[in-house]
Amino acid sequence: MVTDNAAVRRVLRQALDEDIGSGDVTTDAVVDPAVMARAEVVAKEAGVLAGVPVAVVLLEMVGPGIEARPLVRDGDSLEPGTVVLEAEGPARFLLQVERTLLNFVMRLSGIATMTRRYAERLAGSKTRLLDTRKTTPGLRVLEKYAVRVGGGRNHRLGLYDGILIKNNHIAVCGDVQEAIRRARSLAPMPCKVEVEVRTLEEVRRAVEAGAEVLLLDHMDRDEMARVVDYCHWKVLTEASGNLTPDDVAAAAEIGVDFVSVGALTRSAVWLDFSMRMTPLPEDPHGPA
Amino acid sequence: MVTDNAAVRRVLRQALDEDIGSGDVTTDAVVDPAVMARAEVVAKEAGVLAGVPVAVVLLEMVGPGIEARPLVRDGDSLEPGTVVLEAEGPARFLLQVERTLLNFVMRLSGIATMTRRYAERLAGSKTRLLDTRKTTPGLRVLEKYAVRVGGGRNHRLGLYDGILIKNNHIAVCGDVQEAIRRARSLAPMPCKVEVEVRTLEEVRRAVEAGAEVLLLDHMDRDEMARVVDYCHWKVLTEASGNLTPDDVAAAAEIGVDFVSVGALTRSAVWLDFSMRMTPLPEDPHGPA
Amino acid sequence: MVTDNAAVRRVLRQALDEDIGSGDVTTDAVVDPAVMARAEVVAKEAGVLAGVPVAVVLLEMVGPGIEARPLVRDGDSLEPGTVVLEAEGPARFLLQVERTLLNFVMRLSGIATMTRRYAERLAGSKTRLLDTRKTTPGLRVLEKYAVRVGGGRNHRLGLYDGILIKNNHIAVCGDVQEAIRRARSLAPMPCKVEVEVRTLEEVRRAVEAGAEVLLLDHMDRDEMARVVDYCHWKVLTEASGNLTPDDVAAAAEIGVDFVSVGALTRSAVWLDFSMRMTPLPEDPHGPA
Amino acid sequence: MVTDNAAVRRVLRQALDEDIGSGDVTTDAVVDPAVMARAEVVAKEAGVLAGVPVAVVLLEMVGPGIEARPLVRDGDSLEPGTVVLEAEGPARFLLQVERTLLNFVMRLSGIATMTRRYAERLAGSKTRLLDTRKTTPGLRVLEKYAVRVGGGRNHRLGLYDGILIKNNHIAVCGDVQEAIRRARSLAPMPCKVEVEVRTLEEVRRAVEAGAEVLLLDHMDRDEMARVVDYCHWKVLTEASGNLTPDDVAAAAEIGVDFVSVGALTRSAVWLDFSMRMTPLPEDPHGPA
Amino acid sequence: MVTDNAAVRRVLRQALDEDIGSGDVTTDAVVDPAVMARAEVVAKEAGVLAGVPVAVVLLEMVGPGIEARPLVRDGDSLEPGTVVLEAEGPARFLLQVERTLLNFVMRLSGIATMTRRYAERLAGSKTRLLDTRKTTPGLRVLEKYAVRVGGGRNHRLGLYDGILIKNNHIAVCGDVQEAIRRARSLAPMPCKVEVEVRTLEEVRRAVEAGAEVLLLDHMDRDEMARVVDYCHWKVLTEASGNLTPDDVAAAAEIGVDFVSVGALTRSAVWLDFSMRMTPLPEDPHGPA
Amino acid sequence: MVTDNAAVRRVLRQALDEDIGSGDVTTDAVVDPAVMARAEVVAKEAGVLAGVPVAVVLLEMVGPGIEARPLVRDGDSLEPGTVVLEAEGPARFLLQVERTLLNFVMRLSGIATMTRRYAERLAGSKTRLLDTRKTTPGLRVLEKYAVRVGGGRNHRLGLYDGILIKNNHIAVCGDVQEAIRRARSLAPMPCKVEVEVRTLEEVRRAVEAGAEVLLLDHMDRDEMARVVDYCHWKVLTEASGNLTPDDVAAAAEIGVDFVSVGALTRSAVWLDFSMRMTPLPEDPHGPA
Repeated sequence: MVTDNAAVRRVLRQALDEDIGSGDVTTDAVVDPAVMARAEVVAKEAGVLAGVPVAVVLLEMVGPGIEARPLVRDGDSLEPGTVVLEAEGPARFLLQVERTLLNFVMRLSGIATMTRRYAERLAGSKTRLLDTRKTTPGLRVLEKYAVRVGGGRNHRLGLYDGILIKNNHIAVCGDVQEAIRRARSLAPMPCKVEVEVRTLEEVRRAVEAGAEVLLLDHMDRDEMARVVDYCHWKVLTEASGNLTPDDVAAAAEIGVDFVSVGALTRSAVWLDFSMRMTPLPEDPHGPA
Repeated sequence: MVTDNAAVRRVLRQALDEDIGSGDVTTDAVVDPAVMARAEVVAKEAGVLAGVPVAVVLLEMVGPGIEARPLVRDGDSLEPGTVVLEAEGPARFLLQVERTLLNFVMRLSGIATMTRRYAERLAGSKTRLLDTRKTTPGLRVLEKYAVRVGGGRNHRLGLYDGILIKNNHIAVCGDVQEAIRRARSLAPMPCKVEVEVRTLEEVRRAVEAGAEVLLLDHMDRDEMARVVDYCHWKVLTEASGNLTPDDVAAAAEIGVDFVSVGALTRSAVWLDFSMRMTPLPEDPHGPA
Repeated sequence: MVTDNAAVRRVLRQALDEDIGSGDVTTDAVVDPAVMARAEVVAKEAGVLAGVPVAVVLLEMVGPGIEARPLVRDGDSLEPGTVVLEAEGPARFLLQVERTLLNFVMRLSGIATMTRRYAERLAGSKTRLLDTRKTTPGLRVLEKYAVRVGGGRNHRLGLYDGILIKNNHIAVCGDVQEAIRRARSLAPMPCKVEVEVRTLEEVRRAVEAGAEVLLLDHMDRDEMARVVDYCHWKVLTEASGNLTPDDVAAAAEIGVDFVSVGALTRSAVWLDFSMRMTPLPEDPHGPA
Repeated sequence: MVTDNAAVRRVLRQALDEDIGSGDVTTDAVVDPAVMARAEVVAKEAGVLAGVPVAVVLLEMVGPGIEARPLVRDGDSLEPGTVVLEAEGPARFLLQVERTLLNFVMRLSGIATMTRRYAERLAGSKTRLLDTRKTTPGLRVLEKYAVRVGGGRNHRLGLYDGILIKNNHIAVCGDVQEAIRRARSLAPMPCKVEVEVRTLEEVRRAVEAGAEVLLLDHMDRDEMARVVDYCHWKVLTEASGNLTPDDVAAAAEIGVDFVSVGALTRSAVWLDFSMRMTPLPEDPHGPA
Repeated sequence: MVTDNAAVRRVLRQALDEDIGSGDVTTDAVVDPAVMARAEVVAKEAGVLAGVPVAVVLLEMVGPGIEARPLVRDGDSLEPGTVVLEAEGPARFLLQVERTLLNFVMRLSGIATMTRRYAERLAGSKTRLLDTRKTTPGLRVLEKYAVRVGGGRNHRLGLYDGILIKNNHIAVCGDVQEAIRRARSLAPMPCKVEVEVRTLEEVRRAVEAGAEVLLLDHMDRDEMARVVDYCHWKVLTEASGNLTPDDVAAAAEIGVDFVSVGALTRSAVWLDFSMRMTPLPEDPHGPA
Repeated sequence: MVTDNAAVRRVLRQALDEDIGSGDVTTDAVVDPAVMARAEVVAKEAGVLAGVPVAVVLLEMVGPGIEARPLVRDGDSLEPGTVVLEAEGPARFLLQVERTLLNFVMRLSGIATMTRRYAERLAGSKTRLLDTRKTTPGLRVLEKYAVRVGGGRNHRLGLYDGILIKNNHIAVCGDVQEAIRRARSLAPMPCKVEVEVRTLEEVRRAVEAGAEVLLLDHMDRDEMARVVDYCHWKVLTEASGNLTPDDVAAAAEIGVDFVSVGALTRSAVWLDFSMRMTPLPEDPHGPA
C-alpha cells in the first residue's frame, strides 16, 4: 500500500503541520476537548475515487481516538452524494484534519478521474498509458499512485530510477550514440536505456547504439507508424507530447507500446468533496 | 519575498530531492561534469507569470556555479514563446533542476492566471478577492503567493492565524453565540472572529454575539443583498461557495467586502513552459 | 490540548534527546533493565501548577511501559510537598526522563505563578492580561500555554499571525498612515491591524488611517486616560512597557482593553519541584 | 566558539522559524524589500553580556546582506545604554530577527550576570563554581556557555558525558557500592565516577568502592568540613543544594573542590535589551 | 559527482555531528580559536584511493576558512606514505574533522581496493562486475560510488530502482511465471525484470514468462555454461553467490554478462590513513 | 538497551528508508498485501551474535503486524545453521526489511566476533580492552554496543564526552603541560584528562601537569613496562597502535590498564547470515 511508505507518511505529517501550525485557534477556543463527533466524507461530483488509504492515515495521525470506516475503495466510481468514508472520534481532531484530508482526496481523485478518461480509450489494445514527472512537487509518489488507481502505469518515479536521454542531454553531450554507449556501460544495470527521438534518422542511430525504448516526441501519426514498423520486435516505443484522448486512441491503433500523458497530472482539476459532522454523546472513557 | 522564508526553502529542497533521489542516473552517466550550458525557460501558452523567485532559488540550490537572469517579473503577462529566464552553469545541474523548476513555475503561473481572470471582474469595486485553504498539501505558502501575484488577497494561511467558526464547529459546539463568546475571550487577541452563516437569522445572532466578519456560504444574491444591508458599517461580509467569475462580479455590485474562491487553486490548470538548453564552451575555471 | 500539537511534541522529543544524547551512561551501567520503580513529582514551593500534560507526554515518549497518574491539574495552587503526579514503570526510563520533565514543569509553573500574580490585579475588570513574544526560544507555544493556565490571554504567537506596526516599522516605512494603509490592503484578511503609538497626535493619525488596536507604549496614566477617552467605541487599546502589578491595576481602572506584560515570561523564576523514586517488585511480564 | 556547533546552529534556525513561521505579515505588507536600515542593540540594565556570537549568527541566518559589528565582547560588563552591536542591511531582515535576537541575548546575559554574582564570591579560592542540568529545554549548550562567560565551569552536559550516581539510582539499584562497581567496569572509560552522598557513612562506603567525586547534597557546614577532611588528597568534593552566594563563599572556606548551583540558570531573570532602527539610503546594488 | 547529492551531504553532516555532538571538549579547552594549521592526509598502506570529494566536502562543512588541495584522484593507486590531500585553516576545525574524514576515506578506499582486485580478473572480457545491497546502512550511495571507483558497475541502488524477483518473492507469490507477469504489467516501465533462478527448469520458465535478466544463484560452472548457452541473444545472465576472484574469472570465461559480488563491500577491510598537523603563523584576517 | 536510544532509532529508520526509498517496486507488483509469511534469520558462519534488539526494532518499524521471536541472545556463540530469530507477519514487510536487517546483524556480529577474539587474550588479567573512534560514520553507538557485546569496554563515544589530548593538539597548542592545564580548568568537570605520549620524558611532563590517563602510542614493550612502572598508583595507562591479539596479551602481562584496538571495528569482516521465508495461511484479520 502506498501509505506503508515512510516518505509518504512524512508528506502527510507535513501537510497536517502546514495547516495546524502552532495550533488551531478556532477549535481550541470553541470546542471542548471532550466532545465526540461523527464525520462523513461525501463526493459532490461524479468521478473516480483515489486517496482512501491517505485519509485513513491522516485520521490516525491527527490524534488518538479516531475510528475510520472506508465505505468505497480507491478506483471505484462515484456519484454526487456518495459517502466514501465515515469516522468517529474527538471532534477537535476531526475539525483539524478536515481540510487537509479533503485536499488530498480531491487532488488524487481528480487525477484518477482524468486517468480513467484516457485509459478507457486504450481498452482492448496492448498499448499502455504512462504518466510523466509533471507532478506536484512533494506529492509525486501519491500522484503516481492515483494514476495507477485510474488505470495507468508509472513511468520512472524520478531521475534516480530510469534512464531517459532527452534532447537536452544530447545537446550537451554532443552525440546520441555516444550518450547511449555511456548509459549502457555506466548507469546502474537494471535500468532500460530510453532515448528521445524526433526523426527516423534519429531512430535508426539510437537503435543501432543499443537504445531499449524510444520516446517519440510530438511525432505525427505517419512518422509514428514508420517507427513502430521499424522497431518491431526490437525496441519498445513510447508516444508523447500533449496527447489528447483521441491521439492516445490513434497511437494504440498504430501499435506503439506506451503513451505518456502529462495531462493526467498537469490538467487534472480537483474532484469536489466535503465533510459533514454531527456531535456524538460524550465518550465516557474520554479525556477527563 | 516569499523565498526568504525558511519553510518555503525547505519545500524547494525537498522537491529537488524528490526528483533527484539517490542520483540522476542519466546525467551522471551521459554528461561530463565539466560541460557548461545555457538554459532558457520559455512560456508555451498565454497567461500570467508566477514563480520566478522560486526558479532562481532552485537554480542556486541545485548546485554551485549557476548564474540566473530573470527576464520577466511575476505578475507580468506572457505570450507563447516569451523567454522568462536565462541561466548558465554546469550542464549537469541545469538538467537536474529542469523538471522541478518547470513544475513549480507551471503550477504557480496556472494559479496566477486563474486569479487574474477573477480579479479582473472586481476592477473598480471595493470588493476584494480572497483565496481559500483548498491548496496543494505542502505548497500553501507558495500557492497563496501566486494568488497575490494574480491580484488576489490572502485569507488565513492555516488554522493557526485566523478564527473562522464554520458550520461543523457550531454543530459540535451547539450554539453559535456561545462559540463566538468563547472565541472572543480565549483565542489570541489579534485575530478577527469570522463566522459562517446561511440565513438572516444566523446573521442577526452572530452579529449580536460579536462576530467581526460573516462568511456568507452559498447565499443567493437577494439574501446577500439583505445581509450586506443589515451589516453596513458594523461587520464585514465575505461571499463564498463555488463562485464563478460572473458570481464574483455580481457580489461586488451587491457590495460584499470579500469574495473567497476555491477555484483559484482547485481548478487552476498548469500553464505550459519548457526549458531548452545549448552547450557552452567549457569553463576554464570549472571542476578539473 | 497543547500537547496535541505536533510541533510541541517535537520540542519535547528534542529536549529528551538533548539530555540523553548518545545514552545515559550512569543508568545503562548501574540499573538493570528489568528493575521497575515508582516516581513521584513533588512541589517544593507554593505556586500555580503548569505542565502536567507535558510531563505525561514525556513519560510516554521516553520509553514504553510507564503508567502516569496526574494528581493535580494545571492551574491549581500548590503548597510545598504537594505530589502532582505519580508514575510507575521501568526504572531506567524514569531516571532518564527526570531532569527534562522537571525542567519543563518548573519553567512552566514559574510562568503560571507569575501570571496569576498579575491576573489577580485585574479581577472584576474588563481589562485582559496579554503576554508578549519575550519567550524562551523554542518554547513559545508552551510558555504561552502557561500564561493561559495562569489566567492570561495570548497576544500573537509570532510574526505570522498578527499585524503589529511598531516604531521600527514606521521608522523604515516613513509614515504611519502609509504603513496602516498597506497593512489593511496587503496582509491576510483575518488579522486586526495594531499600531504602536506614543503621543496623542500619533493616536489620532493611526485611528484616522484605520488602526484597529493601539499599543500604548510607556504612556503615563494621564496620557493613557486621554487615549482611552478618544478611542472609546472606536478602537481597542493595549498598555505596555515594563508594567508592574500596580501599573496593571491602574491601567484597568483607566479602562484600557488590554495590558501586555513581558515580565510574565521574562522575569518568571522557575518553581521548584523534585522527583523521588522507590523500587517496585519486578514486573513478571517485563523484558526478559 | 559555541556557534561553530551544528546543533547550536539548528537551535538558532528553529528559533527564527518559530517566530517567523509562514511569514512576517506586518513587514511583508508594510516594508519595501529594497529598504535598508541600521540597527543597534542596546543594554537597558547593568550586567554581564553574553550572546554576541549568537546574535551575529542570527543576523547572518535571517537573510543575505546584513553586516554585523559587535562593539562589546561576551563577558564584559554593561551599563544601561551601552550599545553592544550594530548591524546594517535589508530592513525586512532586521525586523524579522529583532525579537529572536533579543530573546537570546537577554536570556544568556541574565545567566552570565547571575553567574558573575556567584563567581565573585569564589575569587581567590581554589573552589570552582559549576552549573547543573537545570537548563531551559533545548538551550543547554548555550546556557552552559553563558555560565562559562560569567565565570563558571560546566558540570556534565547531559546524561551522556558524565557518571553521576544519585539517590534515585541507589534507591533502585539497592546498594551504592554495587552501583559504583558497575559504573567503574561498564561505563565509558573517560568518565569520572561521581556519587551523591548525604552522610559520613555514605561517604566512607562510596570512597571505599572507588568513587572519584562526591556530591555533597544539602550538607551543613560541619558535615561538609568533616567530609572534606576525610577526602583530602583522595577524592574530589562538590557541594550542592540551593546554595546562596553566602553558602558558596562558606563552602570555599571549608575547601570543597566544587560548588554546583542550579540558580545560575533556574533563577536568572533576563537582562533587558532593545533594538532601535533607523532607515539608510537605499542600497544601489540591492534587490531590483 | 557523488557529493553533489543532497542525501549524501546529509550523511556527511550527520557523521560530523555524531562525532562532535555537543562540542569537542578537548579542542575547545586546549586550542585557541585563532590558531591556524596545516594538515596532510597520508596513506599508510598500498591500495586504491576513494573518497577525496567526500574529504573536501567535510573540510568545507566543518567550519569556514579551510582551504583543501587534493593531490591524488579517486581511483589512483597508493603507496604507504602517499600524501593524498593537504588542507590549511583554523586548527580547531581540522582537529574536529580528522576522525570523521579518515573514517570515510579508509572505508571507501578499502572498498575500492577490494573491487580493483576483482575487476582485474575481468580485464579483457565482456563480463561486468556488479555490487550488491550488502552495504553499510546509511552509506549505500557512497559505498556504491567506491565500487565504481574501483572498476565495478552498480546493480540497483535499493528496492526502488530495479525489479529483482528472488526466491523469497517466489515462495510467497507461489509461482515464478505469475510473479514475472505481474512485474511486467505493474512495476514502473523503465525497470528490467530480473529473476533469481537455481535450475535449468526455472531458467526455462522464467525466460518463457518474459524475464529480462537471470540471477544465477550459487550455480556450478557446468550449469552456468548451460544457462548461458540457453539464454544466448535472449536474456542477460548474472552469476552470484560468495564468488572468489577465481570464480569471477571462470564466470567470465563461460560468458555470463554480469557477476555480482557481496564481498566488495562486506569483506573489505579499511585501508589505513592518518592525518598529521603542523601549526601555521596566525591568520591576520582570522577571528578577532 | 541500545535501541531505547532515540538517535539509534533514527539511524534504523534512515537505513530502512535508504533501501526502500520511494517504494519496493518488486514486492509492490508481485506480492499481494494480504499474504502472510514466516521468516527465519540463520547464521551461515561461526561467530558471536550481536544485533538482535536491532532486528526486533526493524521488524516493528517496517510496518504493523509482525511478531518477532528472538531465539539466541546477543553475545552467544553461533554455529553455521543456527536460527537466531523467527518472525511472522505480512510478507511484504518481511521482504522489505530483509536486506537492512541482515546488513545490521552481519556488521554488528562481525564486530562482536572480532572483539571476542581479542578479549579472550585478556582473560584473567586486569587489563581492559577498549574500542576507538574508528567506527562506520553514522553507526558509532551501535558499533560500540557490539564491542561491549563481544567483551570490550567503550572508550569515549565522541569528541564530546572525553578529553584526549593527542599529538595534533600538542602540535598546535605548543606545549603539553599548557594543554593539560587548560583542559583541567576549562573542560567539563566529569571528564578525565587523557594525554597521548610517545617518550618517557613526555610521560613525566604529562603526569607532572596533572594527566589522569596516558595513551601510549606505538610504544615497544620495554618502554611500556617503564611507563607502567613509573605510573604505578598514580595515573592510568592505555596502550594503542595497530595492536595484534598477541600484542594485547603482552600488554596485559606488562600491566597496562587498558588496550585500545582500532581493528575491532576497522578490520571486522561481516559475519554471514541469511533470511529464508515460507508463506503462511492468510491472516483472517489482516488487511481487507
